[in-house]
Order: sequence, then structure tokens, then C-alpha cells
Amino acid sequence: MNSVWISPVPGLPEIASGASLPTLIVEGIGGLGMSLESGDVVVITQKVVSKAEGRVLSLDRVHPSPRAIEIGQRIGFDPRHVEVILSESVRVVREAPRVLITETRHGFVCANAGVDRSNTGGKELVVMLPEHPDESARRLRETISKLSGASVGVVVSDSFGRPWREGQVNVAIGAAGVVVLRDYRGRHDPAGYELQGTELGVADELASAAELVMGKLDRVPVALIRGASVSGDGSVQALLRDPATDLFR
Amino acid sequence: MNSVWISPVPGLPEIASGASLPTLIVEGIGGLGMSLESGDVVVITQKVVSKAEGRVLSLDRVHPSPRAIEIGQRIGFDPRHVEVILSESVRVVREAPRVLITETRHGFVCANAGVDRSNTGGKELVVMLPEHPDESARRLRETISKLSGASVGVVVSDSFGRPWREGQVNVAIGAAGVVVLRDYRGRHDPAGYELQGTELGVADELASAAELVMGKLDRVPVALIRGASVSGDGSVQALLRDPATDLFR
Repeated sequence: MNSVWISPVPGLPEIASGASLPTLIVEGIGGLGMSLESGDVVVITQKVVSKAEGRVLSLDRVHPSPRAIEIGQRIGFDPRHVEVILSESVRVVREAPRVLITETRHGFVCANAGVDRSNTGGKELVVMLPEHPDESARRLRETISKLSGASVGVVVSDSFGRPWREGQVNVAIGAAGVVVLRDYRGRHDPAGYELQGTELGVADELASAAELVMGKLDRVPVALIRGASVSGDGSVQALLRDPATDLFR
Repeated sequence: MNSVWISPVPGLPEIASGASLPTLIVEGIGGLGMSLESGDVVVITQKVVSKAEGRVLSLDRVHPSPRAIEIGQRIGFDPRHVEVILSESVRVVREAPRVLITETRHGFVCANAGVDRSNTGGKELVVMLPEHPDESARRLRETISKLSGASVGVVVSDSFGRPWREGQVNVAIGAAGVVVLRDYRGRHDPAGYELQGTELGVADELASAAELVMGKLDRVPVALIRGASVSGDGSVQALLRDPATDLFR
């Protein structure tokens, strides 16, 4: 195992719809006096990916349904925000004061379907998750690799809460060019005991590691990870637990 | 934000009860041609901490209760192993083929109460979690800091599964000298919108980052993290979600 190095990528401006994230990222890394190398992983927070893809909505233009109004009143949440959350979800998993846990159309179970009202660029704006985050990662990877001449991996990250544990952690919602799940099942430990049910969520660990150099308020939406031996071709689909084997739906 | 550097700490032998982990860790880091610096974080996997503390049991000496036998038959699990899991737990949260999700005496909700049968040093041996992981971290921190002359942080890590997402990720089960939860609540984004419910599980992110240089089978139970600005005095208690606000118990 080698050592791993993680750097914030500075200098990105506020991202607007249509911005070329790959160009800004490659320039930002150039600003560090560095260039991308094959095997590097670029972790990009969902919010700038969504903004570049135009996944931003003004609540002024949202007309909440009776159901959204009812839920909003019950949980103390802007019914227009609830309306957007419901439109991004296939079902509500739990509701509680000021939070809706839903299953998104992508299959993620998370708070508010990932529809966020902070760091959106305006008080009345909400940012939704990318429509197809694995596709977003694939496109970003392609262009970054073309611009830099290096075969890199890309992880699109978001911070999700967890049952049982306080605090959000960064997880992967899209990935390209990296191992997403590393499978140790069927292998044996030195004493000959078979490793049971041991798969590691490597893409999530990359996202969490990147968060250490990001910081919620510092507007560092991109991190570069070098030295992790994680080249592969995983998809975040692999991280979605089969509802049939999920004990907590 | 600075860059963060993570290195595996090589050279640790198989750990037996009573082993001086701090000495082995400081020597291992010396073997890298380095020395610890204040602000460094040492992440140590639970298994070696437990082994050093003698938290190892031979299943030959375990007499399963009728309840353990019944559960073992139902889920296809060695009833002696089930017995140890139950003795480490305050309640069973879910059971399914080959897995018991329980709440441990510490308050962790995880598979098999963290009682593990792989990489234990013998086919009939199980390793339990440390009795007081925060205390373990505090003692390790004290001795490592004394030996090295540097004020370091310590995280004791284990890999836990999650609802909804495949793959285990490393999380913190004990911590000393580091921020465990970083609280952004009440702060405002650049547009003046208050950040809602935003706390980051920093200690868990440190554990996940460390896993990138460990690897399940490679017997690298210790990682050194340098450059993360995480000095503090958190306890993993802060990561235990209050059952009253937990939607998934």
C-alpha cells in the first residue's frame, strides 16, 4: 500500500449553468503548480455538478400540491421545498420535524431527496441532485482526461446523514473510472477463516476522505486524491442495496 | 485548507494480549524514516486494539444459551458466536440469514455487535470490541504522545455496514484528541441562508480516509494522517444518535 495525498483544488468561481467544470478543475490544479496524473481521482461535490447542469430551481416558480402543503405544515418546512422533494422522490421513507427521508428516483435514501437550499446562490433557490450522477461522472471524467492527457477517476459526492450515528459524511452519488465496491468475499484470512460479507464501499471512502480538505463553508468543491490504488470501472449503482436484502426500508 | 497526507504504518507484528501498541506504532513510523508531529492523527483498527487488550475468546469455552442456539439455527450462525454477540449487546435490532444487527453495550448499532471471527489469529477465536473504546483511544494517545513528544490524535476504527448502501465503510468507535463532530448549525451560507442540520462526522471521515491505505487482508492495522486540521477533544459518544431522534430503531 502506498501513501495517499489529498489536496483541495482552489480557485473555482461560483458555478453557473453551463459552466465548464472540467476546464475550471484542470486550471485549478494547474494553479497548484501541478498537473493530473493517471490514477488520480477528482472528487467533485454534487452542488457544483448540479449547478453546472442547471439543476437549480427558484421556489417562486413552484406551486405546491395539497400533499406538499399538508406535509410542510406537519413537519415545519416550506411547502414549495417539499413539493420539489416529492417530485424528486419515488417514496417517503420517514418524516420528522424539519426533515423528510425519501428514496430518490436514483435509488438513494437520504434527507430531502438531496434537494438543498443552502449554498445555492440565492435564498429562494434550491439545487437538486444531478439527474444521472454516474453519467455526470462519466462525462466529467472523459473531458478532464482529454484536457489533461491523464486517465483519471471521478467521484461526485454529497453529504448524507446516517441512521444511528450523528453527523453527515460525504458519500459517492456518482462515479467513473474508480473501484466503487471492493469485494473480499470468498477470500480467507491467514488462519483460513473465510471473510464473511466483507465488501468495502471504496467510492464512499474516497468521498469521505475528500471532505477532510473541503469544508462546508469554504467553497472548496473539488479535491484531488493521488496515490489511492482505485482505478476501475465501478458504478454507484453497485452501492444501492437491493431492497429485498435491506433490513431498514 | 491544507492538503492531507495518509500513510500506512508498516511493520506491526501479529498482536497478542498485552502488546504495547504505542511502542510498535512509534517504531513503525520511525521505520518510515519519519517521526510524529503535533496535529498528526493515528488511526488504529479496532482488531489490534482489542487483541492488545485481551478481548479475544475461544469459542471452545463458550456454552451457548437456549436463546443463542435458537437464533443460531434460525439464521445459520454458530450458536457459540451468537452467544458472544448477545453477551455484548443490549438488544437485537434485526436478524437475517447469517447476520444479527444489535445495539452494543457502547450504543453502537452494527452487525454481530462487532464480534468478529476473521483475522482473529485462529479459526475458533473471536475478537470483541474494546470495552471502552474512547478510553482505549485516550490511553493510546497519552502513551504515543509521551513516546513521541508530539501531541497527536487517535481514532480507533472499525468497518460497519450501513442501511440502504452496500459495502462497509470504516467508522470511528473511539477517539481522543480530535474533533469528532464539526457543527455548522446556525452558520449562514454566502446568500444568508442558515445551514440546517449540518454537522459533519469528522472522526468517521478520518477512519474512512485511513482505510484507503489499509486493506482488509494486508494486515496494515495503523495509518498516519497528517495535515487534517482536526485537533480537538471529541468523544465518540457524540456520534451516538439519541434514540429519541433516531427514525430507524
